[in-house]
Amino acid sequence: MGLQFAPRAEAAIIGRMPKIQSPPGMRDFYPDDMRQQNWLFDAWRDVSRSFGFVEYEGPIFEYLDLYKLKSGDGIVSELFHFQDRGEREFAIRPEMTPTLARMIAARANALPRPIKWFSIPRMCRAEKPQKGRLREFFQWNADILGLDEMIADAEVIAVVVAFLRRIGLSPSEAVVKVSSRPLAARLLESIGIAPERQGGAFDLIDRMTKTPAAEFDKKWNDEFGGSAPAARLRSVFRQSSLADAEAALGGIDGPAREAFADLWNFLKAFDVADFCRFDPGVVRGIAYYTGTVFEVHAADRSHRALAGGGRYDNLTGLLDGPNVPGVGFGMGDAPIQSLLADLGRTPKLDEALDAFLIDADARFFPQLMAVANRLRANGLRADFSYKRQALGKQFKQASSRAARVAVIIGEEFEQRGELIVKNLATGQQQAVAIEELATELSRL
Amino acid sequence: MGLQFAPRAEAAIIGRMPKIQSPPGMRDFYPDDMRQQNWLFDAWRDVSRSFGFVEYEGPIFEYLDLYKLKSGDGIVSELFHFQDRGEREFAIRPEMTPTLARMIAARANALPRPIKWFSIPRMCRAEKPQKGRLREFFQWNADILGLDEMIADAEVIAVVVAFLRRIGLSPSEAVVKVSSRPLAARLLESIGIAPERQGGAFDLIDRMTKTPAAEFDKKWNDEFGGSAPAARLRSVFRQSSLADAEAALGGIDGPAREAFADLWNFLKAFDVADFCRFDPGVVRGIAYYTGTVFEVHAADRSHRALAGGGRYDNLTGLLDGPNVPGVGFGMGDAPIQSLLADLGRTPKLDEALDAFLIDADARFFPQLMAVANRLRANGLRADFSYKRQALGKQFKQASSRAARVAVIIGEEFEQRGELIVKNLATGQQQAVAIEELATELSRL
Repeated sequence: MGLQFAPRAEAAIIGRMPKIQSPPGMRDFYPDDMRQQNWLFDAWRDVSRSFGFVEYEGPIFEYLDLYKLKSGDGIVSELFHFQDRGEREFAIRPEMTPTLARMIAARANALPRPIKWFSIPRMCRAEKPQKGRLREFFQWNADILGLDEMIADAEVIAVVVAFLRRIGLSPSEAVVKVSSRPLAARLLESIGIAPERQGGAFDLIDRMTKTPAAEFDKKWNDEFGGSAPAARLRSVFRQSSLADAEAALGGIDGPAREAFADLWNFLKAFDVADFCRFDPGVVRGIAYYTGTVFEVHAADRSHRALAGGGRYDNLTGLLDGPNVPGVGFGMGDAPIQSLLADLGRTPKLDEALDAFLIDADARFFPQLMAVANRLRANGLRADFSYKRQALGKQFKQASSRAARVAVIIGEEFEQRGELIVKNLATGQQQAVAIEELATELSRL
Repeated sequence: MGLQFAPRAEAAIIGRMPKIQSPPGMRDFYPDDMRQQNWLFDAWRDVSRSFGFVEYEGPIFEYLDLYKLKSGDGIVSELFHFQDRGEREFAIRPEMTPTLARMIAARANALPRPIKWFSIPRMCRAEKPQKGRLREFFQWNADILGLDEMIADAEVIAVVVAFLRRIGLSPSEAVVKVSSRPLAARLLESIGIAPERQGGAFDLIDRMTKTPAAEFDKKWNDEFGGSAPAARLRSVFRQSSLADAEAALGGIDGPAREAFADLWNFLKAFDVADFCRFDPGVVRGIAYYTGTVFEVHAADRSHRALAGGGRYDNLTGLLDGPNVPGVGFGMGDAPIQSLLADLGRTPKLDEALDAFLIDADARFFPQLMAVANRLRANGLRADFSYKRQALGKQFKQASSRAARVAVIIGEEFEQRGELIVKNLATGQQQAVAIEELATELSRL
């Protein structure tokens, strides 16, 4: 309410302008939408905390250089950026990792270990406005920092699976596709792609599922067919278990294989292996990841990736900070909500009042207010009609506000300090002494 | 985690650049700060909901025109604004009211009544970077829309007071200064300032407390001294009760006086009058407000206003929307946190684990994991050491993580399925069967 509205005379002139719309690609959260959003955020928070993660946040914009440093100058066109009057250049954050790196670099040695941090940042990307392309979204991030042991890799995957379970998804509906960069490199090597050519190979593989098979095979064979034809690649990189891939390969071994087996054992120990599948096709096309990589998808691949993450070996290196290894992931709000909607699994949420107060007669209104004050001071959600009106109309409002009970203040209150509490679901009613009302409502 | 880190070779070059700092005037929320922030937001949410308000949100930026429409072109220099590739002009929101107006205008007739909405938007203003001037902040907003009855004015003030009480402030520490534009106009009229000159008079009065007395008096007398000398103005506009002002005036009457008496009676009915003081010097310098106006201040005036609000008679008029009267307020996060800090009342918050799990020997680690999985699946906050190490070191970690209890998995578990639960505050310990652990911890 801080800034000035234009004077009314001016308003009369401007009033003829067309209405101003919501900006393209941005969402309004009316109360019904907000309940869904809060439900999702609560699930993210609860699951994070149950695993011992603590929450952090950063600013909505950072110096533009922070993003250029991480992603090169090409990133600028994907950002909303601007200058202040001092000609400093800023950009609204398109992801949380650079902020995380900056915050960790600034206090790396002072932070208590282990660093298990989560956040639910709002972020923007300058997408072309078109249906289904959001310019603003929220993204759950969780990271374990300063630890290079495989149990941490498994634990961040376990957090993701705990969330999938919590919102009611089963392994037949959502799957975590897990691989590791070193193991994938080992697989490439085993079919004859030498290390110096693997970067280009990973870039292609990363697009394998998004490219028509014939087109992919042609591209692959043009570049790598001399070493390994596309059919051979597919026989190894389209497996859903490491055992299958091994069978196709006649056995692989070495440290990458052993490390991956460790990861898999920890996934079993965390009781989340039922949601996980080995998929060497997951490479995350990102120079940044150095070990475990994973993506979460709807099992029928009907949606964009629900989440993605992995291990990186030096978060703060770009910022001249100390060496900080870590493992983490990001999960956007929109794909999850869209999947739940498609599955008919969007939760039914209302914002029920604990009590709607009704006066049997207008003369009891001061007493009604006193009851309302008492309930509200006890943290109960209580409301009442602003208008003094007939009982029936007040009951109608109680229903439309989804109140759990109606509390009627009438002659019993005047005579004995008693209220009538009516359960609006069952219709049952009982007399309750004013002193016991808050306790009784909390019990219901 | 979505975008690409620059390849490592490049990083080695860039690594020599100076570290990138947090942007000026923006805050990082490390976990300790975030707990304070969440504590404040939870209080805002709980209080809003106890009064039957429901939450909404809007986009972080809007069309720049929305703000120009409300506040004139002069607002642009106070905003962070930018264009997208389609040359649309946007600005990061500096306040929530224009977004609220847009959202209400779009669905005014479809929204269930009463419209009691709250929000905790993040917003930015292009302040000059200097100590204590934040460019980014959060602001609790609550509004009752579509209702022009005085009970709504009193209720939004009651919400503010409920929050002040909830965070432990007393009337000797924080005060709600209440006035009404029509009543203040009546007072000005009574000392001889005619309606057509009152706009200028209000602008001056709005700056009265921020201006040295002699300077104010000179300005006032230059313009209005002919009708009413500054001393006369002060005798009326520096009163802390309506009765005092009346005494100085020899009585005022009329509809403005009656409406204000109604407001005061409702404030008493909401049991919040002890925090409220009549202060005709509160004019909110804003063409936008048409009725009740109020500001919340530290009682010793040591801080900027903690909150401000009032009644406006047509929220959506500027947007060509239907006539929607309303009353509401905004309260920033920073002044409240600063006041609590000055009072030594910043809450002590930790992020306690419900249980820290300890294995009596490394061979019990698989069982420890099973217990951790079970507790976490029950929504309990459980963690354990990543390293297999001596009992003493594990207990030390349990303390440093502020765990309520340590749960020791040892031979009793192997033999009888029992765990040792040790209360880390009292030192007491007991054996608990695995089946009862989650229930027992929830009870603690």
